[in-house]
Amino acid sequence: MTTKVLIIGAGAIGGFYGALLAKAGAEVAVVCHSDYDHVKQQGFIIESYIFGTWTFTPSHVLKSAADYQDTADYVLLCTKVIPSIDRVALIRPAVTANTAIVFIQNGVEIEQEIVDAFPDNEIISGLAYICSHKTKQSKILHQAYGRLTLGALPSYVSHKTARLCKLFEQAGIECNATENIVTERWTKCVWNAPFNPLSVLSGGLSTLDILKFQEPFVRCIMQEICLIAEAVGHRLPDTIIDVNIAITYGMLPYKTSMLLDYENGRLMETEVILGNALSAGKRAGLNIPYLESIYALMKLRELKLCV
Amino acid sequence: MTTKVLIIGAGAIGGFYGALLAKAGAEVAVVCHSDYDHVKQQGFIIESYIFGTWTFTPSHVLKSAADYQDTADYVLLCTKVIPSIDRVALIRPAVTANTAIVFIQNGVEIEQEIVDAFPDNEIISGLAYICSHKTKQSKILHQAYGRLTLGALPSYVSHKTARLCKLFEQAGIECNATENIVTERWTKCVWNAPFNPLSVLSGGLSTLDILKFQEPFVRCIMQEICLIAEAVGHRLPDTIIDVNIAITYGMLPYKTSMLLDYENGRLMETEVILGNALSAGKRAGLNIPYLESIYALMKLRELKLCV
Repeated sequence: MTTKVLIIGAGAIGGFYGALLAKAGAEVAVVCHSDYDHVKQQGFIIESYIFGTWTFTPSHVLKSAADYQDTADYVLLCTKVIPSIDRVALIRPAVTANTAIVFIQNGVEIEQEIVDAFPDNEIISGLAYICSHKTKQSKILHQAYGRLTLGALPSYVSHKTARLCKLFEQAGIECNATENIVTERWTKCVWNAPFNPLSVLSGGLSTLDILKFQEPFVRCIMQEICLIAEAVGHRLPDTIIDVNIAITYGMLPYKTSMLLDYENGRLMETEVILGNALSAGKRAGLNIPYLESIYALMKLRELKLCV
Repeated sequence: MTTKVLIIGAGAIGGFYGALLAKAGAEVAVVCHSDYDHVKQQGFIIESYIFGTWTFTPSHVLKSAADYQDTADYVLLCTKVIPSIDRVALIRPAVTANTAIVFIQNGVEIEQEIVDAFPDNEIISGLAYICSHKTKQSKILHQAYGRLTLGALPSYVSHKTARLCKLFEQAGIECNATENIVTERWTKCVWNAPFNPLSVLSGGLSTLDILKFQEPFVRCIMQEICLIAEAVGHRLPDTIIDVNIAITYGMLPYKTSMLLDYENGRLMETEVILGNALSAGKRAGLNIPYLESIYALMKLRELKLCV
């Protein structure tokens, strides 16, 4: 039986992973906003460093989840997580009793809102380790990496999780199922919390330059994320900071997603990457001045963005 | 007897205060770099919100202190304090046995270098509370404030300090003599340490916007400066933070000197305002993560400036 997927937020992440699911044989519909007309006419053009260039033609191109006439096995939410986007309202019209809700999004402590709104649905939390962006309307450039990690909430690997992983693997991309997806979110935050804000606050430095010149500061921020993660029940391995530092030295120097957003005048995921971590730390009574500092500065930066 | 003054670093600070000393009857020579030709031909044009517009014609316009043929009562050093400027070398050729060396400059712990180089000279440390900038070559706009504080090192009011204060007062600008000029430097740093860096790191916000949106963060930085000042023997009043906050709310929202430098692609006084404070704090074994954070970010910013 063909797997039916509805992608909501078909940007550089949603469009790319949707295209892979279609490649693996799923029937993939998309909800688009800004590039609806383009996508409707010509689909997505995906230019991938792994898979080459191909056109992804969705089964349906919709303006809203309410226009979806089918029953989705998976609703994949792939928008940025920013205060102006109501995640629950975006997906609700397409969620039926048998729909698994999947969100492939950044940030920590972003689960509860979805869990509360859909208490009877299976919910799969996902993380994408990818460097991709839209070069123009309906054209997606996949530059590096691409691995996914998926896990059902609160913490297990469901049948539907395994099935979705298999589809991604069939399409040729690494996809790991995990029983500890919430821990994985904190793990990813160890990297995101320093490099995303510092790339913006430095005025556009690459991850490599940030690390080369301010490694001790990067480590201080990572250490605070580890403290918070432990305080909320997700103790990370002792080696995690050293590993992250080593990996980043080995990475291509690249622009973080926050920097790309900033440079394009788009809202950044400051709240879900820094704000939520900071709140969790404060709730736990922790002293986390490095995070406080970069969060305060990012809030000032955002202000300038809006002026 | 006419007081003879040589101004070294005749920018928006040196040119303005030199002009006032000339107004009070002193014989004021200047060492200029970038605008030597302009100043030589037409002097400085000062446009002051207090005194109106007038032309200041120096007694001599020189390219170097070595060209000064007279014996100065005061050598006034008014450059920025940045690693690329050798303060001692700049003034040495003009310093005689009876010369009082005056530096009107920003930063903390900037005394020792001068004291060590000229152990037999009287040295007067000065702070300018002023908003002024060069609008074009040899033209100085004095927009707000203007008060000076002067004190002889290590900590007394010398006869020459009092005489210099009197000249400034005669010219119509407030000038206070203090027995605790080093403490005054730390006092000024309480304001400079947050507002200068934050104006740059925020992407150009005014002092008022910084304060309106991130007052707790500003207070954290000020608190660390107070801790350091106390550790190095300059305990500041308990009310100093509240007073600084209140004063800043009352100020015109203005661009800090660091922001002006940054926007014009010039080197900033990061080291003498933040770096020296941080070093003093580290020497004293203090935990000062907020300063560490903004210093690390400023170093990254400077990097981008040089690219």
